Amino acid sequence: MKTSAGNFLEDFHIGQTLVHATPRTLTHGDVALYQALYGSRFALQSADTFAQGMGLKKSPLDDLLVFHTVFGKTVPDISLNAVANLGYAEGRFQKLIYPGATLTARSEVIGIKENSNKQTGVVYVRTHGLDEHEKQVLSYVRWVMVRKRDAASVITTNQVPKLAEALAAEDLILADEINYDTLFDPKLSGSHHYWDDYAEGEKIDHVDGITVEEAEHMMATRLYQNTARVHFNQFTEGKGRFGRRLIYGGHVISLARALSFNGLANAVQVVAINGGRHVNPLFAGDTVFAWSEVVAKAPAPGRKDCGALRLRLVATKNLPCGEFPDRNGKGEYPENVILDFDYWALLPRRR
Amino acid sequence: MKTSAGNFLEDFHIGQTLVHATPRTLTHGDVALYQALYGSRFALQSADTFAQGMGLKKSPLDDLLVFHTVFGKTVPDISLNAVANLGYAEGRFQKLIYPGATLTARSEVIGIKENSNKQTGVVYVRTHGLDEHEKQVLSYVRWVMVRKRDAASVITTNQVPKLAEALAAEDLILADEINYDTLFDPKLSGSHHYWDDYAEGEKIDHVDGITVEEAEHMMATRLYQNTARVHFNQFTEGKGRFGRRLIYGGHVISLARALSFNGLANAVQVVAINGGRHVNPLFAGDTVFAWSEVVAKAPAPGRKDCGALRLRLVATKNLPCGEFPDRNGKGEYPENVILDFDYWALLPRRR
Amino acid sequence: MKTSAGNFLEDFHIGQTLVHATPRTLTHGDVALYQALYGSRFALQSADTFAQGMGLKKSPLDDLLVFHTVFGKTVPDISLNAVANLGYAEGRFQKLIYPGATLTARSEVIGIKENSNKQTGVVYVRTHGLDEHEKQVLSYVRWVMVRKRDAASVITTNQVPKLAEALAAEDLILADEINYDTLFDPKLSGSHHYWDDYAEGEKIDHVDGITVEEAEHMMATRLYQNTARVHFNQFTEGKGRFGRRLIYGGHVISLARALSFNGLANAVQVVAINGGRHVNPLFAGDTVFAWSEVVAKAPAPGRKDCGALRLRLVATKNLPCGEFPDRNGKGEYPENVILDFDYWALLPRRR
Repeated sequence: MKTSAGNFLEDFHIGQTLVHATPRTLTHGDVALYQALYGSRFALQSADTFAQGMGLKKSPLDDLLVFHTVFGKTVPDISLNAVANLGYAEGRFQKLIYPGATLTARSEVIGIKENSNKQTGVVYVRTHGLDEHEKQVLSYVRWVMVRKRDAASVITTNQVPKLAEALAAEDLILADEINYDTLFDPKLSGSHHYWDDYAEGEKIDHVDGITVEEAEHMMATRLYQNTARVHFNQFTEGKGRFGRRLIYGGHVISLARALSFNGLANAVQVVAINGGRHVNPLFAGDTVFAWSEVVAKAPAPGRKDCGALRLRLVATKNLPCGEFPDRNGKGEYPENVILDFDYWALLPRRR
Repeated sequence: MKTSAGNFLEDFHIGQTLVHATPRTLTHGDVALYQALYGSRFALQSADTFAQGMGLKKSPLDDLLVFHTVFGKTVPDISLNAVANLGYAEGRFQKLIYPGATLTARSEVIGIKENSNKQTGVVYVRTHGLDEHEKQVLSYVRWVMVRKRDAASVITTNQVPKLAEALAAEDLILADEINYDTLFDPKLSGSHHYWDDYAEGEKIDHVDGITVEEAEHMMATRLYQNTARVHFNQFTEGKGRFGRRLIYGGHVISLARALSFNGLANAVQVVAINGGRHVNPLFAGDTVFAWSEVVAKAPAPGRKDCGALRLRLVATKNLPCGEFPDRNGKGEYPENVILDFDYWALLPRRR
Repeated sequence: MKTSAGNFLEDFHIGQTLVHATPRTLTHGDVALYQALYGSRFALQSADTFAQGMGLKKSPLDDLLVFHTVFGKTVPDISLNAVANLGYAEGRFQKLIYPGATLTARSEVIGIKENSNKQTGVVYVRTHGLDEHEKQVLSYVRWVMVRKRDAASVITTNQVPKLAEALAAEDLILADEINYDTLFDPKLSGSHHYWDDYAEGEKIDHVDGITVEEAEHMMATRLYQNTARVHFNQFTEGKGRFGRRLIYGGHVISLARALSFNGLANAVQVVAINGGRHVNPLFAGDTVFAWSEVVAKAPAPGRKDCGALRLRLVATKNLPCGEFPDRNGKGEYPENVILDFDYWALLPRRR
């Protein structure tokens, strides 16, 4: 059999290492497409001059473009037979990446648990993104529900890893070469609100909405070489669960992050992904809105020029966020909420 | 309030300078997207070798890509609360821009006039695009109708600037380094029609039509970091005036300019924007056609290798332009005419 | 008349050389768009590091991106008045091309034959793609049915060139600088199937399907500066033969090639196009599937590190390819088959 059918639950074992195919060199071309697809305006990634004002030689790639590229590589091996992408944890960006870098990805299986229906199970992997010098760029844990090849096969492993609810601020990795101090220009960044100006518990409605088209999410997902079939094939999906192509969850994260500029313009770096849940599906034609909550606020480890905000980024479809739609008392999400994403961002501090 | 609500009529005063956010480095990635979105074929911007034949080191960016990028920066400060973009004048390209350059924008308020309804008024700004060396790249005047924050507030300023109907040919700024003479190759440029071959009053039907999709105009507008809400949000616009997302007027200008290749292939440089009016809205699914009229013909100042044509570029929707649809005797436009754009272009002269 | 109406049958003569307009510099921006449009995963073109492992300085451009760019240039002169694009033959890639190269194209008329209806005829051209040093990059023969300007005009030429059914493996041109040997890493390429593992007559279902949107095929076709009107103008095409915009046949080739990764991941280079027929039209909304057949297997001339496979790549619309839909005994294609493409690819050999 020359074609790959992906891995089933039986194919995974604890400690297994998967080297994922198709390394990818990211360039200014990818940067421009990312711009056209999401409309981001964070100054650090938008202008070499602004990055130079922060001590860098040029603009680094958007952190989420790096994330999606690494994620995409894992799909053929991890989630081609996935029923659902259940969550992320312990995601940490370890190195700024510039156009011209080549990314590869490896994953280690850290948990396996069969479901009681014996049809499916959950696989936990820790994925590492590496650059062309084999330097760590990003690592994160992901767990997915995958099908068994054969319901009759016996799964003896039953191991669920303990995962941090969130990274501690002191465990964030900050690039030495970046400087939020003297030359961070709030006129050019689009906001005069510094880290100091945000309060724990504060909620921000990002106001704007953006409607998604089929061509856009498919172009994005192909850019990431993510091959999950549910995103591309109307012939098959038209007969499936939703009758439609499902939009890659990462596309929602990037849309919501771009919307969050309006209120968080100075949160120019994503340094950690504490967790993320795609709580309802998004389809073409839907309009995405977003709001954020400041979950925690901490100094950045070893730094006085910047501080860290732990943010919840909640995205909705077809529902403006002026009233901050959220889980109810039972922890249930309204059907218009599509994303609950928990991350750490860096912002400049007042001098 | 962390989010920006944009400026209202009360927030502007004569002489005010606005430094716009989010500088932007343009790269080969933006060039490729511009190509994919409009299909331009002007040789100077398409091939480094052709640009080298004209004395440059490589292809400069399309003049309109530069214009849209500068324009986009002004939107959050000038036109987020705009009812309508009323016009452009005195637009002048001052410098060729190459991939790798970073653009910023500043605007100066040069006119304010309240409307008699006391709900809205008109603001006139002169916007300057600058490169990373603070060199002037482009300047133009734009006026927009903006809302008042409060109908009861009193606007004491009533000042409308005098604007040139068109730039005089002798005021055009030509790049010293470009040479239309010896190596401009008409086989490769796509036309053997030189400046000498066009006559004042001549009309050219550009024949072809191009249908616009939602994904295209949104990708373009995000590429320019233009955040005007009417272009992106079907949820809100679906309940609005047109029931649809409105396409950014600049997208129409670039489509019409690309269509104008068929008839004006040697008009490889736009050097001035005398005026521009978006006289009817364009929506996804519409097909854009265009025709041009040679309004005036003048030698280029200080040059024998090229000449300037003042051109009216008229775009229509769903109406081929073989009969040159235009204003009637009362100055009213047919509903299928969407753009009336007045600019100066340079063409090589016969030796 | 300033606008071009293209050439009609009467305008061609045997031996005529056409220098096509608008040279084009291809960059990393084009590479990223190609990626976003097709989702290709062939490692050689995806990662500079993988290309370096094969002895190159960086990733070359996808061979089909080069083909489409050269093809696009010929459209205004050859096929603007085409009724149908009938076929390709004797296509040979002669040189690897890297971002930054500028392509131009010339065609030589090698055959003319009027149809018995006297309204149309067939023109055969041999097209040469050249780089900025005038080095041959690609050559191929194409024949198209074009309209006569005037049914009454007399066509005296009746000459049909003899074309090879397929290039012989020994006539393939291999780049000296590329090395399939020591550092071709099958973990990163996505497959451990080498040239040795394929058998003549073997058929491979590429499994996945991809739905095409209007915005995508138009962006692709504009990227190639292909101006054929049937792809862009819904206003006119809506009243035409199909009532729809027709998708550029080359878009189908690239989609099918990207799908073929699943089963042919190590076929990283297309070195020849033996033939290609667009046997049914594709429209937006259709889902493309593909299968391949190994037609022949041959050592690569003068090389022990790689071998050549002659492959038939068959694409369908709205029909999965598990049963390898094909011509019937009379040579007729089912209506869901849209492409029958015959090419030579290179794969690494086992050591």
